[in-house]
Amino acid sequence: MKQAFKNIRIVMIQTSHPGNIGSAARAMKVMGLSELCLIAPKRFPDAQATAMASGADDILEQAMRVDSLPEAIADCQIVIGTSARSSRSLQWQLRSARECGAYVAEQSQDKKIAILFGRERSGLSNAELEYCQSLVHIPCNPDYSSLNVAAAVQLMAYECAIHMNNSALATPDVKQEPVVDNQTMEQFYQHLETVLQEIRYLDPDNPKHLMRRLRRLFGRIDIKQSEMGILRGILSAMQGRKFQKRG
Amino acid sequence: MKQAFKNIRIVMIQTSHPGNIGSAARAMKVMGLSELCLIAPKRFPDAQATAMASGADDILEQAMRVDSLPEAIADCQIVIGTSARSSRSLQWQLRSARECGAYVAEQSQDKKIAILFGRERSGLSNAELEYCQSLVHIPCNPDYSSLNVAAAVQLMAYECAIHMNNSALATPDVKQEPVVDNQTMEQFYQHLETVLQEIRYLDPDNPKHLMRRLRRLFGRIDIKQSEMGILRGILSAMQGRKFQKRG
Repeated sequence: MKQAFKNIRIVMIQTSHPGNIGSAARAMKVMGLSELCLIAPKRFPDAQATAMASGADDILEQAMRVDSLPEAIADCQIVIGTSARSSRSLQWQLRSARECGAYVAEQSQDKKIAILFGRERSGLSNAELEYCQSLVHIPCNPDYSSLNVAAAVQLMAYECAIHMNNSALATPDVKQEPVVDNQTMEQFYQHLETVLQEIRYLDPDNPKHLMRRLRRLFGRIDIKQSEMGILRGILSAMQGRKFQKRG
Repeated sequence: MKQAFKNIRIVMIQTSHPGNIGSAARAMKVMGLSELCLIAPKRFPDAQATAMASGADDILEQAMRVDSLPEAIADCQIVIGTSARSSRSLQWQLRSARECGAYVAEQSQDKKIAILFGRERSGLSNAELEYCQSLVHIPCNPDYSSLNVAAAVQLMAYECAIHMNNSALATPDVKQEPVVDNQTMEQFYQHLETVLQEIRYLDPDNPKHLMRRLRRLFGRIDIKQSEMGILRGILSAMQGRKFQKRG
């Protein structure tokens, strides 16, 4: 159970106001979460962050600080983006905050999960959304959906904690083969893109479009390590060479 | 429905930090609530409250300001106190935030409801609790239950709104593209098997084993029709010919 809480990483991207970082840390801790990752925060560390964190300054002190999203999620198997817009759902699987809490509670037993929170004004960029396998939407007033980023962290942490505490007595997990992490998925997408170029399936005028569709497709499966070996093996066979296992 | 939202009054008692009042106003508006009542705030109006309210300054402007709790709840039929302690439940009916959201949604159709939020440091006094018919408890980390008062308003407003708007606030029902049927999947597996033989990836001594693994893998995704078009297209490109769409 404890491990499940540790398997959830809150990722804040280019947060402008340090107070929001502090408030988010407090929001996390009050719900039992502890792992915060900051991507290129505008001002951090900062007295305002510490003030707003109240007694949760340990979370600020232990926070990961990185420059890019791939670094933040390299060791995660599941990447979830928070989105104010629901129109994006045509391409991504979209869950309500409540549904997402249940999903995270289930998956965090044995997988590392990143939940991404975008910039105060503009949220997540399209490039960042490409890394997400699914999106979560916090239902808001349609006439005023300006949810503060720390409030969004609070609500998501609450929904995760509620479901995780409820699942304390859930059926214990049968030992499952681990799911590959994000870095491995990125290597797969690169290999796939290369092969698609070689077999001339990729439209050279619009290569991004196809890759985006394929990311949505393969991003929905929790691919296990041995399965990834098969997929990479097929790609290598298409190239007429054997795929070398790494590590 | 609209009237039900107007029947909920958020009451903040002797709030010390004006930023919390502003954040609470924003938290309310984002969930569709509008009626805020401030009992003897330490500093209000205040620039910090307005700054934190973001676009919800209309709620601050319209906020009731009174000196005592009886004034704040004079016209209310139901008074609910928020409490960090659960031991008080021996004397009061205690609901979780979620249960309370459902209760408020039901009662607010035709009753005026006040939800009381106490001071930042000390919460509600015993005298104030006497005015409450029931209490609501937001489940927190037992080792750190220091929930910020504006975050508490956010969570309660969210739970009320979710239940009041049940269907309207749930995951937006976006028209999803249909998932392919089983027959289409079988045709895909056949095509895949053929290609794997052609690129000599399939072990001729044990062809079933690999196909079984691949069936488990692709069988876990709900593949949409356009995605199937892509997958079949890739297989055909590997064979050096274009895949003909059927039907």
